[in-house]
Amino acid sequence: MNRRSNRRSFIKNAGLVAAAAGGSATLAAPAIAQSAPELKWRLTSGFPKSLDTIYGGAERFAKQVSEMTDGKFQIQVFASGEIVPTPGVVDAVQNATVEMAHTIVYYYFGKDPTFAFGGAVPFGLNARGQNAWAYYGGGNQLMNEFFAKFKMIGFPCGNTGAQMGGWWRKEIKSVEDMKGVKFRVGGFAGAVLSKLGVVPQNIPGGDIYPALEKGTIDAAEWVGPYDDQKLGFDKVAKFYYYPGWWEGGAQVHLLVNDEKWASLPKAYQAIVQNAAAHVNVDMQAQYDALNPKALRELVGRGVQLRAFSPQILEACFEAANQTYAEMSAKNENFKKVYESMKAFRNEENLWFQVADGTYDSFMFAQQRAGKLNP
Amino acid sequence: MNRRSNRRSFIKNAGLVAAAAGGSATLAAPAIAQSAPELKWRLTSGFPKSLDTIYGGAERFAKQVSEMTDGKFQIQVFASGEIVPTPGVVDAVQNATVEMAHTIVYYYFGKDPTFAFGGAVPFGLNARGQNAWAYYGGGNQLMNEFFAKFKMIGFPCGNTGAQMGGWWRKEIKSVEDMKGVKFRVGGFAGAVLSKLGVVPQNIPGGDIYPALEKGTIDAAEWVGPYDDQKLGFDKVAKFYYYPGWWEGGAQVHLLVNDEKWASLPKAYQAIVQNAAAHVNVDMQAQYDALNPKALRELVGRGVQLRAFSPQILEACFEAANQTYAEMSAKNENFKKVYESMKAFRNEENLWFQVADGTYDSFMFAQQRAGKLNP
Repeated sequence: MNRRSNRRSFIKNAGLVAAAAGGSATLAAPAIAQSAPELKWRLTSGFPKSLDTIYGGAERFAKQVSEMTDGKFQIQVFASGEIVPTPGVVDAVQNATVEMAHTIVYYYFGKDPTFAFGGAVPFGLNARGQNAWAYYGGGNQLMNEFFAKFKMIGFPCGNTGAQMGGWWRKEIKSVEDMKGVKFRVGGFAGAVLSKLGVVPQNIPGGDIYPALEKGTIDAAEWVGPYDDQKLGFDKVAKFYYYPGWWEGGAQVHLLVNDEKWASLPKAYQAIVQNAAAHVNVDMQAQYDALNPKALRELVGRGVQLRAFSPQILEACFEAANQTYAEMSAKNENFKKVYESMKAFRNEENLWFQVADGTYDSFMFAQQRAGKLNP
Repeated sequence: MNRRSNRRSFIKNAGLVAAAAGGSATLAAPAIAQSAPELKWRLTSGFPKSLDTIYGGAERFAKQVSEMTDGKFQIQVFASGEIVPTPGVVDAVQNATVEMAHTIVYYYFGKDPTFAFGGAVPFGLNARGQNAWAYYGGGNQLMNEFFAKFKMIGFPCGNTGAQMGGWWRKEIKSVEDMKGVKFRVGGFAGAVLSKLGVVPQNIPGGDIYPALEKGTIDAAEWVGPYDDQKLGFDKVAKFYYYPGWWEGGAQVHLLVNDEKWASLPKAYQAIVQNAAAHVNVDMQAQYDALNPKALRELVGRGVQLRAFSPQILEACFEAANQTYAEMSAKNENFKKVYESMKAFRNEENLWFQVADGTYDSFMFAQQRAGKLNP
């Protein structure tokens, strides 16, 4: 079967249907039109199909919505670049080129750095903290006030957990060693690291491997063991650092055009919200189940695991605080969301170190001592 | 309005309707009968209404299901004891006295210790690990093979995170100090602690405070700061220990009678599963948002926070391993689920200590140093 031509005819048909009905909604049998209309929507993912975890989250979201509506609400998922490239996702949702997107909003840092708080920020909240802030700390409400400027509404829809600190061709023992290193890393972390002499590089996922192989760049970060292993970075950079302090818990968003959202029946809105929350917990679980095996395999192939030294982390933390202050002085939206996240972060870290932190530390020590062996 | 009499007439009506239709399903207008029938189900919670977090999870679950079905699938939530006492929940679901329940399955440890793995076990998985094992590590499938013996199917539907180690009237500096202490604690932890000379006490939540006040017991564990604060334990026991190593991430379950489940249209099954997953992530977020303030207030009222010493934790861990071995020798179901959890636990603790663990440790240290202050 030729998937590509089928997809083309789907797009074509969907377009025709939308034109005929005066919108993207096509109405089914009149008896159930009001409460359960037949809809065909398009969702663009910010990720390539090769990432079955994070791209797969959008597929799972669409499947849940379809199953909950007996197939009446169909969401067609397109990988990054199939109809919209990742950097164009916010524009595409804003202009209703697509009804929905599934992406990490820190990709739109260049548009406005406030976006980053919805995804992950340097020394920000961990995965549980990000959920708590979003759902019960006013975080999602603040992000939605901001997203409204782009005619979007957003819902947490996945998390990777704390990411790794990337693949480095040389060992980095001190802040001095970072000077002049060409590091492929996202916008916000790049702004922080440039204060320490790192030269941040903005390179799409697919181009990282050859750049690292040729030595055009000296280091690159991507996600964590499971995703990184697929790209084969261990063949061209030996040192695998942790933690990725710029992504202590990277939250993925479902973004919906606001007018399209308002046009949905209430039951469909509830269905979308529940499916998004389902994927939010499901994706974290999948990463947590897949990463250990990948980490073992990488180490088995000779990868050298290295923790960033406390001195390096302290210097990066100081540089991050300076960056926050500078951005806050220039951008009111940024300042407002930062103050909310910062206050919440202090409280979460107060509490998490008590029951969860001591429990985890004890269990980690048992693991290292070989006492958890099955 | 007299809520109680309204509830009685609801129960009565639901009973009559069920009798007329030959089941608990009542059919709506014929046009949509097959795919979206009108249903009124009953859910019994294992928790009292006073626990807005964990009891509230069932209310939120029912609200999501109602909203997703335009009010067609109504689930009436009853607090513990209103129609079924907590210890009778599994029997009630098995006999279809209620269609559903929302509880922590370790409460049914006395029926079969295998139940405990679905909730929390001594030195078991943390909250993220429990989700990963359930969704992607075969855990939920194993639990459902076991639940099938009780004519039930279960879905993760909430988590408290790591709990606290309880309220102790005297400081516990060594394993010696634990000998003879009458400690209100659940069945599995009680079995472990009795090996160290602790005298476990089985007391319902509402009776703990007077027992601790009178000195009938010397110590009691409940949940964590937010829930514990409501019961006022700080007035009768000064030392608040952590971590609750018997509940490193207590998972709450939605349990459904298997025949009732099979009778649901596929779309309703999907709706129930998505609502359960939604509550699973939502409850953890709520606990994580509420616990810090409660912890601050408790400490502000003079509560003495104490970590169990490494020596105590090591001794408890050894005693837990003995208990696992004894139970495994006597119970094939238990052994099978334990082996699965144990293998998964080793892998999770290998990975979690790398990116997440070092990230959290660094942030905890900044919090203690006052560097996260808003």
